[in-house]
Amino acid sequence: MEKNLAIVLVSGGMDSLACAAIAKKENEELAFLHLNYGQRTESKELECFHAIADHYHVSQELRKVIDLSFLSQIGGSSLTDKNIEVKDYKGDSGEIPDSYVPFRNTIILSFAVSWAEVLGAKRIYIGAVHEDSSGYPDCRPSFYKAFTQVIKEGTKNNDISIVTPVISMSKDQIIKTAADMGAPLEKTWSCYAKEDKACGVCDSCALRLRAFEKIKMEDPIPYAKRPKYT
Amino acid sequence: MEKNLAIVLVSGGMDSLACAAIAKKENEELAFLHLNYGQRTESKELECFHAIADHYHVSQELRKVIDLSFLSQIGGSSLTDKNIEVKDYKGDSGEIPDSYVPFRNTIILSFAVSWAEVLGAKRIYIGAVHEDSSGYPDCRPSFYKAFTQVIKEGTKNNDISIVTPVISMSKDQIIKTAADMGAPLEKTWSCYAKEDKACGVCDSCALRLRAFEKIKMEDPIPYAKRPKYT
Repeated sequence: MEKNLAIVLVSGGMDSLACAAIAKKENEELAFLHLNYGQRTESKELECFHAIADHYHVSQELRKVIDLSFLSQIGGSSLTDKNIEVKDYKGDSGEIPDSYVPFRNTIILSFAVSWAEVLGAKRIYIGAVHEDSSGYPDCRPSFYKAFTQVIKEGTKNNDISIVTPVISMSKDQIIKTAADMGAPLEKTWSCYAKEDKACGVCDSCALRLRAFEKIKMEDPIPYAKRPKYT
Repeated sequence: MEKNLAIVLVSGGMDSLACAAIAKKENEELAFLHLNYGQRTESKELECFHAIADHYHVSQELRKVIDLSFLSQIGGSSLTDKNIEVKDYKGDSGEIPDSYVPFRNTIILSFAVSWAEVLGAKRIYIGAVHEDSSGYPDCRPSFYKAFTQVIKEGTKNNDISIVTPVISMSKDQIIKTAADMGAPLEKTWSCYAKEDKACGVCDSCALRLRAFEKIKMEDPIPYAKRPKYT
């Protein structure tokens, strides 16, 4: 009998780590997909991807890294366009941040579905988070509902589902979930700006540090600056 | 005032040519997007893309070619996997052909939407054809309806629409439409197998030749073999 196989989108951040831990419990075998879309901190994220894959015993054949760095040609985002400065965290303005890559999650999910059709995987885990998503429109539950309909209409067997196990969690709940499941938080990276030590001041570092503070846990990764956010 | 701008997906085939001709009538300015997904006949298709762009006076800045050739890593299709032989046309079996790239149209549309957000384009024209689509599930009208909902949920301004002007046409109607609008059919390519002269026997050549026969037009491109299909 074929093993029950799931694909996990693993960026190298904490949300995808929590997803991987949950997927590991719910499936017999995992395949990991990493998308390099030309972000500044890609080599650090790729290192984390492989460290997490090693941790969960994902075979080399079931690790795939897709280079989407040409997204920087499309532009419109400080994550991919090195001419746009990454702004420091300024609090919850409710605005969509300039680190937004237009329609990124749809691009990523489309590749995952394509690979799932080839592998015969039935589930795709993605660590999208609604509350702490900084307003990316394609992190909303309603987006995933709509995308599920596209899979149903656009695939041969229409039996692939998207699983978003952390979508309703806050960042501190995600950290707690990962820690409770023994997931290696020290092998994750969140900083948008630096690779040697996390900057501590970009949007992503601020969210991360604030969440660790809230549950009174020490973040195990190194920081250049470690401001107090609460 | 900003010009009314539309993106047209131009593969270099007749369906996208008809789309371009229709888009030219309906919009003030066009941007052309071409996806190279590692198909065997890519260099010929790219040549056609630029010839059609020249014909419709699309500026160099508004022509974008995205290399998706890593799709061949995902595999599962004779269009991208050189180890799978392209089968000759065997008639309408109703089966999905092995030249199927899983979820290809979703991948392509996702990039188009991303670029549309950056350019401020409000319409994306794609030459999907339901009847002559050889059963690709992502050529069905219901697929486009579902994808429109994903755009609505997953973009900032949710004001981008997908236009499929030839979706309900038969191949001969597409040829007639293109010819009636003065579109350069001699600058298109359909063959999946060859680049110097069309093979005349692959699925795509068979559909094309049969359609030209039906409306008693001479196909202006060169063929290695030109069987009678009707």
